Amino acid sequence: MNAGRPVLVIGCGLIGTSLALALSEQGRVVHLADAVQANLELAVSRGAGSPDPVADPEIVVVAVPPSVVTDVVREALERYPRAVITDVTSVKAGLIAAIEQSGHGDRFVGGHPMAGKERSGPMAAAARLFEGRPWAIVPTSTSTDGAVATVTRLAESVGAVPRRMDAATHDRAVALVSHVPHLASVAVAGLLNNAPDGALELAGPGLRDVTRIAGSETGLWIDILSGNAAEVARLLGLLRDSIDSAIASLGVDPASLTQFLDAGRSGSELIPGRHGGATETLAVVYVSVEDRPGELPRLMADTGESGVDIKDVRIDHELDRQVGQVEISVLETAADTLVETLASRGWAVHR
Amino acid sequence: MNAGRPVLVIGCGLIGTSLALALSEQGRVVHLADAVQANLELAVSRGAGSPDPVADPEIVVVAVPPSVVTDVVREALERYPRAVITDVTSVKAGLIAAIEQSGHGDRFVGGHPMAGKERSGPMAAAARLFEGRPWAIVPTSTSTDGAVATVTRLAESVGAVPRRMDAATHDRAVALVSHVPHLASVAVAGLLNNAPDGALELAGPGLRDVTRIAGSETGLWIDILSGNAAEVARLLGLLRDSIDSAIASLGVDPASLTQFLDAGRSGSELIPGRHGGATETLAVVYVSVEDRPGELPRLMADTGESGVDIKDVRIDHELDRQVGQVEISVLETAADTLVETLASRGWAVHR
Repeated sequence: MNAGRPVLVIGCGLIGTSLALALSEQGRVVHLADAVQANLELAVSRGAGSPDPVADPEIVVVAVPPSVVTDVVREALERYPRAVITDVTSVKAGLIAAIEQSGHGDRFVGGHPMAGKERSGPMAAAARLFEGRPWAIVPTSTSTDGAVATVTRLAESVGAVPRRMDAATHDRAVALVSHVPHLASVAVAGLLNNAPDGALELAGPGLRDVTRIAGSETGLWIDILSGNAAEVARLLGLLRDSIDSAIASLGVDPASLTQFLDAGRSGSELIPGRHGGATETLAVVYVSVEDRPGELPRLMADTGESGVDIKDVRIDHELDRQVGQVEISVLETAADTLVETLASRGWAVHR
Repeated sequence: MNAGRPVLVIGCGLIGTSLALALSEQGRVVHLADAVQANLELAVSRGAGSPDPVADPEIVVVAVPPSVVTDVVREALERYPRAVITDVTSVKAGLIAAIEQSGHGDRFVGGHPMAGKERSGPMAAAARLFEGRPWAIVPTSTSTDGAVATVTRLAESVGAVPRRMDAATHDRAVALVSHVPHLASVAVAGLLNNAPDGALELAGPGLRDVTRIAGSETGLWIDILSGNAAEVARLLGLLRDSIDSAIASLGVDPASLTQFLDAGRSGSELIPGRHGGATETLAVVYVSVEDRPGELPRLMADTGESGVDIKDVRIDHELDRQVGQVEISVLETAADTLVETLASRGWAVHR
């Protein structure tokens, strides 16, 4: 991306500051704004951009919370009549409709980078946050081709993978791949509050997987879910019906329960990257690791030195147990090599 | 464990053969039986034990599927009047009640090792399968102290962590930590079969976590669920009610939605090992990795050589993207060391 006219990033949270850092590193002139002076100062101190006002930006990225995004985008469209405006919020239909009504939809293109991390705020920001992540590009009905191309290049320039779609498709997609799985995880984790004594001592990796995302901050989720309430409620209703059918078939209708289980299996196989690509078969190599300092680092080093391409690593290693299990996923064709390498270095390893 | 009288393992699947391998490695005399001759031969060929009949075993481990376990345990109790009998199935109340009625409950102690892997059968067996895993020890109302001690020592001798509990507590516990999370994962994954075009391209690590266990084999699950149908149905009913309350509050009652999200968060924090122990705080270190051969192994080696104790590794690396993200969880106090080590070796790393 060339130096060109400046980029203005409004909102110096995790996403805004990360984007500003990435653009600044490439030599773009980036200006920053934030309603909270302390956030602005932190982002400036990290080298994300300049706090000075800018008269005529080429692009304005509105990186503010969903509850205020519509107002801030409208204001930016008025104030910067030559700029292309985009945003980074998680729900798109309401915003896109409001901007279409404003009459400036030609210069607005919605955006949604599928990136985040456990911490928030400008100090958690990182220029590499977007690398390899999908970034939804969501035009209005009147967005110009030039505006779409500008926002697409912006996403590409920070390493993201642009995926163009309309607002309704986007909101249905994130309800399915993000909002409903989040709520299901929350519902399962909520049951644990009434666990009988000792029950959680039997917990294994499966429960940890299902409930991992239930631990996130709740504040932002309220905003996200309220902006996509209808579609999330519709899908949650389907989920509820599916659970009801499982309840009805439990113990009395194994054929229907089998159908339910099979549908889950086939659905899980549709997720990209789950099995390392359509033509590749993964194998899991299991390693026992004693709970003493230095053992896991040594295993990681030995695994790395095997030269085998690692697809996934899972560690089930609880502090009150003397031995944990590490599962290393590799291509089926490479599993024996990894087993031999690790065994030759003294690891208790099996497939 | 001393050599003593032999152990008889009936059922040469993954669990039976793994246990037999572990015991044989320690010098125990192990005899094997299986209704399927091919399974027996495979287990014998792997050195798990002898196929010869045994007259007077000290322990009989019944490692057959849930649908036949009651009959096989009853037969073993009749046939080996001096033996302590145990099993390895996932649901306990029905079996324990049946054995109590048989009048031989004094010599039976139920067992449930919380161990498994993606493959099944004798060729997938491994002596280290049980290391560090919980193993529920479930006595009958008349099990002798000696029988309980024998089965407890058996679990300990193969590296498992025995957890004694009664059958009702066990079945409630596994419904909560295993059966219901499994069905919730299946229900979410089932929704993906109707994903709109392009929706799954926006999938991130959260969806993969929630749906991971939905990919397991369905056959065994039908048996497990039918044996615990009442308790699973009861808990699934609570899950359904919780989802219904979320549907009702979406978009209209943020206070009640917040309560729902907070309950999930607090529930997820109750899982042992989730945060590396009550007194430890974990931090996530993010590393960008280019999709070319050798990069992930090099990262694993560099991570290991940092000497930092690694709590978890997650890889989000899809084949059609040029760059993936690896998340390495370490103690908060060690995160800076890992960041500095990796940065000094040229990695794009951030916290």
